[in-house]
Amino acid sequence: MLNIDAIKKGIVIDHIKAGCGYKIFKELGLDKADYTVALIKNVHSKKLGKKDLIKIENEIDLDLTVLGLIDPNITINIIENEKIKEKIKLSLPKKVKGILKCKNPRCVTTIEKIEDVEFTLVDENTKEYKCEYCDAKTSLLTNAKC
Amino acid sequence: MLNIDAIKKGIVIDHIKAGCGYKIFKELGLDKADYTVALIKNVHSKKLGKKDLIKIENEIDLDLTVLGLIDPNITINIIENEKIKEKIKLSLPKKVKGILKCKNPRCVTTIEKIEDVEFTLVDENTKEYKCEYCDAKTSLLTNAKC
Repeated sequence: MLNIDAIKKGIVIDHIKAGCGYKIFKELGLDKADYTVALIKNVHSKKLGKKDLIKIENEIDLDLTVLGLIDPNITINIIENEKIKEKIKLSLPKKVKGILKCKNPRCVTTIEKIEDVEFTLVDENTKEYKCEYCDAKTSLLTNAKC
Repeated sequence: MLNIDAIKKGIVIDHIKAGCGYKIFKELGLDKADYTVALIKNVHSKKLGKKDLIKIENEIDLDLTVLGLIDPNITINIIENEKIKEKIKLSLPKKVKGILKCKNPRCVTTIEKIEDVEFTLVDENTKEYKCEYCDAKTSLLTNAKC
């Protein structure tokens, strides 16, 4: 049987909400990677019931802001010599620029198609961000679905 | 370290040309699967140098025609009790319907937007198929890239 061994050096993105792995895989450009990568969906997890995970056998720069926005419960393990060298817990970024779009149809950013709008986190539980122009709240849940 | 074990019962799609795994994963709808699936890209292979592979921990019906068109060198292993029960070698299908499109701009299927056109394999090496309406040859390489 074919087997996928533990990686020697690289990154494991763990505790991805089941169903979100594919989006993250694409977002990180791993569908075009020329090094060894694995996307595993619906793995049994004690904590989440089911989870997705990604293994990357390479050192790459991860955009933690984008990852935090997609799923703040993700854990990132940096692997060296088959052991976890560093564990990074993500959280929702306090400010994001150029990623979210204002949902207010009367906001100047919608009308004048302004890009790179900055949003500030106002509520961690509801995942709501505030538009810098009109102060309208935009929930992340409606903005970035898996 | 997280590990992906051998699957107990399911399907392993092996010897996928490196870079084609993602396309097959999507084509088979595995990006939306609710059972355990793994896509592994750029694994070391004696035969191919590098290969992609897909593991499916479930019994699903595979469309062998579509798989054969994408990559006729794929091997499909049917797994039961962690052992290979059956090995299927793919080949280019002799006839395909509703999958290829005629590249001849003057063909009636292009002008009248006819769907479900049947193509017949004329050359296994060049992967050329013949349109049933205009007899123009269409190479699979230009029709279905990875």
